Order: sequence, then C-alpha cells, then structure tokens
Amino acid sequence: MTIIGVGLLGGSVGLAIKEWDPSVKIAGVGRRQAGMDEALALGAIDTAHLDSAEAVDQADLVILATPVGAFEAHLRAIASRLKPSVVITDVGSTKAIVARVARRVLGSKAPFVGSHPMAGSEQKGVAFARPDLFCGATCIITPTRLTPPRATRAVEALWRALDARTLRMTPTSHDRAMSRVSHLPHALSSLLMMLPTKGDLPITAGGFRDTTRLAGGDPEMWRDIFLTNRNAILSAIDTFDESLMQLRDLVELGDAQGLEKFFAAAKKRRRLTLGNH
Amino acid sequence: MTIIGVGLLGGSVGLAIKEWDPSVKIAGVGRRQAGMDEALALGAIDTAHLDSAEAVDQADLVILATPVGAFEAHLRAIASRLKPSVVITDVGSTKAIVARVARRVLGSKAPFVGSHPMAGSEQKGVAFARPDLFCGATCIITPTRLTPPRATRAVEALWRALDARTLRMTPTSHDRAMSRVSHLPHALSSLLMMLPTKGDLPITAGGFRDTTRLAGGDPEMWRDIFLTNRNAILSAIDTFDESLMQLRDLVELGDAQGLEKFFAAAKKRRRLTLGNH
Repeated sequence: MTIIGVGLLGGSVGLAIKEWDPSVKIAGVGRRQAGMDEALALGAIDTAHLDSAEAVDQADLVILATPVGAFEAHLRAIASRLKPSVVITDVGSTKAIVARVARRVLGSKAPFVGSHPMAGSEQKGVAFARPDLFCGATCIITPTRLTPPRATRAVEALWRALDARTLRMTPTSHDRAMSRVSHLPHALSSLLMMLPTKGDLPITAGGFRDTTRLAGGDPEMWRDIFLTNRNAILSAIDTFDESLMQLRDLVELGDAQGLEKFFAAAKKRRRLTLGNH
Repeated sequence: MTIIGVGLLGGSVGLAIKEWDPSVKIAGVGRRQAGMDEALALGAIDTAHLDSAEAVDQADLVILATPVGAFEAHLRAIASRLKPSVVITDVGSTKAIVARVARRVLGSKAPFVGSHPMAGSEQKGVAFARPDLFCGATCIITPTRLTPPRATRAVEALWRALDARTLRMTPTSHDRAMSRVSHLPHALSSLLMMLPTKGDLPITAGGFRDTTRLAGGDPEMWRDIFLTNRNAILSAIDTFDESLMQLRDLVELGDAQGLEKFFAAAKKRRRLTLGNH
C-alpha cells in the first residue's frame, strides 16, 4: 500500500492498517524528510519517499492524502508506474472534481474510487495521527458508472478493516449534500466569528462558542474545499440566504406565530434527527 | 424576597439564595399550584402564591422570572402594593423594552434595574433548578440614567452573592451586543437545521451538531426574544447578510487568496478571543 501525504489522515490510515495487519507493507510519500522521519518513527509507514513515482510500483492500493490541490500532480507522476491490478482512492472532502481529474489523468490505466472518511479534527500533522481515528466514523465511497465493482469493493474493504461504516454516493450527490451539512455550516461559523464588535466578545457564552467552533478549522483546507465545490456551495448559500430573508420578514412584521412556528420546527427537526444532545 | 415565575431560573435563584443565607424568606409566585408545590418541596421558596399582588408587600427585592411577555401584567398587579424601599429586577434576555415597560408602569413607585444572567440551558422548569446555576456566570446589569445608584448596587450585590460576575451596560447596548453574540447565532443555527434534505441527515457529523445546538432552545422564549429585540436583530441580520454576499462573491470568483484570508482571519479571531477549545 502507498500513502501519498502522511499527515493526520494519511498517518492514521497507516497506523490503523498496521494495527489490523502488521504484515501489510506501507510506502509513504511526503514533501519534507522531517515529516517522513516522524511517520517512520511512529510506525505509520515502512519506507519513506519524497517522490511519489518511485513509491507505487508494488502497490495494490494507493491512497491520496495530500490537500486536494496536489492530487493532479501526483496522479500524473504515478500514472505510468502503476501495477495493472492497483486501485486508487483518496481522503479528500470534495469528490466530483477529484473524480474528473482522476479520469482525465488515469484514463483506463487504473480505477479511482473516491473516499471521504468523516473523521479528523482541527489538528494537523502526523504527530496527531491515531490508529482509532476512523473507528465508528462514516466513510462515504463515491464510485461512478465507470468504476469496476471490484475497485469499489476493495476500497470499501479498506475502510471496513479500519472499523468505519461505509456509504455509497455519487461524487455529485456527495458534494451537494456536503455543501449543506458541512461546507455552508463552516462558512456561517466563520462569518459569525467576524460579526461581534470587540466590545461584545467578553459577553459571549457557550452558544456562541459552539456555533463558531468550525471557524477554528485549517484555512488552506477550507480554501480548497470552497474552490473545488463551488457550484454546490453557491447553491447552498442562495438557499440559505432566501430562508434568512424569510426569517427577516417575520422579525420585521413582528409575526409572533410565524416566529414560534419556525423555532419549533427547527427544534423538532433537531430532536428527531440528532436527538436531544 | 419575591420571585415571580419559579422555573429553571427563578427556582435556581431561590435555591442559591437559600444556600447563601437560609434566613432570607422567599415568596414564590406561579400560575399552577403543582409547580408551586414542587418549588416548595425543593426548598426554592418558603411560601407559594398564585397572585403576584399578594406576594410582594413585604419584599425588599422582587425578581421577575416569567417569560418577558408576562412582565407588564405582573408589574401592573404589584405596582401599588410595593414597599417604598423595594428594588425590582428580572432575568430576561432582552432589556430595552423591559426597561421602558417598567418605567411606564412603575413611574416613581419603585426602581427597576434589569438583569440578564447568562446561564441556563435547554431545560425548562423548577425540576432542573440548581443552586450553582449562576456560579461563575456573567450577569449583565442594565441601569439607566434614571436608576438610583442604591438600586443598581442592590441588584449587583444579589448576583455577586450567587457567585456571578456582574457587568454594567445600558439596556440598548446590551440588546445590540446580544443580537450579535446570541440572537443571530440562534437564528443561524435554526435556519441551518432546516437546510439539509432528509437524505443528507445520515451524513451529518460533529460540526453540524455543534453548529445547530442552539436550535434546540425553547421556541416560546426565542419568539419573545425576537419580538422584543426587533431592531437590533434586523440590523444584525443585515450586517450578516452583507458579509455572506461578500463570501459568495469570493466563491463565485474562485478567489483562492481571498478565501484563505477570510478563513484565516476567522480562525485567528476565534483563537485570540475564545482560545483553542
């Protein structure tokens, strides 16, 4: 197995695979020797490489775990060095653009099946990698009509071996759903963080803290998500903005019944879908 | 002392006062005998009354702890029965309207000084009352230019006795600040809860859960807050909407630098003001 990009996610895949079956040989690829040395010392990889082309020729499975922006260059570098039986996957947060890039670069040389393990944290780097990071998490697998079923099954088997729950979606429906349940929430959280004046900040309470927690995320990762899921995010912003303007009308009109009905509907939906806590 | 409305907040004031000084006599006022019996059994009050007028003639301090919408009727009922030395306060979440109502109804009969203890939870009712609810919390005290200093000091002394930290603001600046750090976050949280389609909900993760936590709040309480802080909330909505449209522009233009700068500014502001966790 080859892991390209051995940070929090890539490193955790390595540690978890080693815990599941220590006999699996893992080649790691990274930009800096120091990071590679750290990954070797932690036991997340067996061999370290600064060049992805030289690390894939024996791999049955290649996992892209760098920022999404670096995928294309790595795919180009490895395309002609792959075993015929290889399967390629990734751990990125947006899937449609990545699927298109992989199809364009790899053609019929190797099947690519996107993965989005919904795990991670605000922490960065292999130092925070944990073998149980994916344990109990949901991992969305995004085959397309062109994906060979054996490739989809191989990627599902990987995540199940790491104790994740797998769920299939198309790349496009993944990106649309994520724009609503993850990307827009991140945008709102960051915008809200910028709203209070300096004088307001001493009186913020737990609610403000919870609602802005996502704003603590890595700016480069979120930049890439917003660049690679543009249309779905624009659509989510527009739908949200329309609902914000409807609420504004209720406030301006002093519509007691309408306001109570709105808050009650949101409370009820939360209880039914997320429970009380 | 008289507590009008013995629910979570009113009941917690009673329990905390009794813990601070068991000799203070507390008259409680409620709408239902069952709630009053529960408050008596828990030791939050000494005597129970269904009529506020008959519960205030010996009080040095009267605390309104009903929903804000019921304040005016109670103030009218008690206005002519108060001791000359009495001080009146409340525990409501908006302050400017309440201050105006109190001035109009009470005139020079008694000083009213608003309080907003920033404590509570999604729970309702005296059964959830706790003597330590205000311990370490911030309580905003909102005197006006017309408030006698002794009344302000009496209300501050009350909250400090309950181990809260007090902070003075004018009613209007309180409401404006709250529209940004509490009321708009609640609106965003509730709107976000309504955004995903049914199919999206199985893939929501911790971030969505945190960002929508406020949507679990009591719909009647939030209706009243949005009715009684209309102008400040409209202004917060408009400011927020403008920033959402600026972000929308960055997304539509694919402005990598602008997006990263925005996310980095929000992350930095959160770290500097709220810390990392």
